[in-house]
Amino acid sequence: MPTKAAHKIVLMRHGESQWNLENRFTGWVDVDITENGWREAVAAGKLLKAEGFAFDCAYTSVLKRAIRTCYTVLDELDSMWIPVTKHWRLNERHYGALAGLNKSETAAKYGEDQVHIWRRSYDTPPPALDKASKDAPWHDRRYQGVNKSELPLTECLKDTVARVVPYWNAEIAPAVKAGKSVLITAHGNSLRALIKHLDGMGDAEIVALNIPTAQPLVYELDAQLRPIKHYYLGDPDEVARKLGSVAAQGKAK
Amino acid sequence: MPTKAAHKIVLMRHGESQWNLENRFTGWVDVDITENGWREAVAAGKLLKAEGFAFDCAYTSVLKRAIRTCYTVLDELDSMWIPVTKHWRLNERHYGALAGLNKSETAAKYGEDQVHIWRRSYDTPPPALDKASKDAPWHDRRYQGVNKSELPLTECLKDTVARVVPYWNAEIAPAVKAGKSVLITAHGNSLRALIKHLDGMGDAEIVALNIPTAQPLVYELDAQLRPIKHYYLGDPDEVARKLGSVAAQGKAK
Repeated sequence: MPTKAAHKIVLMRHGESQWNLENRFTGWVDVDITENGWREAVAAGKLLKAEGFAFDCAYTSVLKRAIRTCYTVLDELDSMWIPVTKHWRLNERHYGALAGLNKSETAAKYGEDQVHIWRRSYDTPPPALDKASKDAPWHDRRYQGVNKSELPLTECLKDTVARVVPYWNAEIAPAVKAGKSVLITAHGNSLRALIKHLDGMGDAEIVALNIPTAQPLVYELDAQLRPIKHYYLGDPDEVARKLGSVAAQGKAK
Repeated sequence: MPTKAAHKIVLMRHGESQWNLENRFTGWVDVDITENGWREAVAAGKLLKAEGFAFDCAYTSVLKRAIRTCYTVLDELDSMWIPVTKHWRLNERHYGALAGLNKSETAAKYGEDQVHIWRRSYDTPPPALDKASKDAPWHDRRYQGVNKSELPLTECLKDTVARVVPYWNAEIAPAVKAGKSVLITAHGNSLRALIKHLDGMGDAEIVALNIPTAQPLVYELDAQLRPIKHYYLGDPDEVARKLGSVAAQGKAK
């Protein structure tokens, strides 16, 4: 007899951002979603509504592409009133000195193999930002309450996992266990971090996992928050199309 | 020598709502802002930005006209990442059985004097919703965590004061005292309640006070949160024009 789900959570990557479109490394740079990204978020909201989802609370990063995606979905669900918690631990992986660079140009300069390593190795971070850089996170007002030693100047996925999982354990998991219906709108790599933790995935497996933009990913969990099954809402062809476009990034062209 | 302000907070009524436009009693009905209301909120955000305001956190009600106004202002300030706390205690006054009725029609039916009493007496509430009404707040998912005995079926301004002030004391005032720069986007009557408390205004004085939509109202406070002075940002003629239009509501025409 299959286990009955005790809980259901929804994970969602933000809609297409301006730098997704320009194929640039983004990381912690606060780039907004495009008109198309907004449409994706609206469509995701309508899909969740049609499927009868009603959230009690939402979690997102402190980056506007995730926040706006979250707000747009909640607006469609007529749930603007639910608590939305924004936390830097749900931010995208910090891309170090690569942030702002075009992925194809970087591939042409360093070689596709090197870019592939930076993008997809589990534990090799890209070159770090200089501590003196004006782009160091501690210069940004939004991180001023955070202990400086916790703020990254670059991250590999392993580093992202190391700061996402404690937040899941401390804040989100207790809410889910308390019976809250939870939406998490975040980023490709902070969601990979969460999925690795939930599914107990290996390092090689998680780096190969692509997550489409603004496509609701449902995780059904048992009472101990162990996944029973997971699936994307929406048209499977559309999901496949979006996945193909993510995988094609970082080629020299 | 004038006292130097220790703190500065900004109060703001939501932008024009659909029912402001239709001259209907709104209360806890979750009516959205109009295109014009949104423009007002954008303008308020630009004004706050030009004046150098940078908020650390914001408080709003659980009604979308106030929430959307808040989000719009924060978007203009590039501060979508700040914590926004939504609470029912900042809701508009509950208008009881009058909610949804056109103010002019109600005036024609009950007389301008009666409507004026309901709108502007300090302690005479409008007719209450029936406990069995499907519009009773406890049927709404957003109030399900609230003790039923705390949820109103109608309110006079005195009642609104009685539920706004404890929230100010428990949640907002401590944040201000801790040095946070605070924005409060709320409603005509929940802001009246707050202003009455801050300024120690009399009952007759507060009911005569009109608050224009989406016009930032700055309160400079001393270390004990006693007001030193207050003023609207923006063009005084525009403020006066908006005030005139609020005062004209509730006439039979």
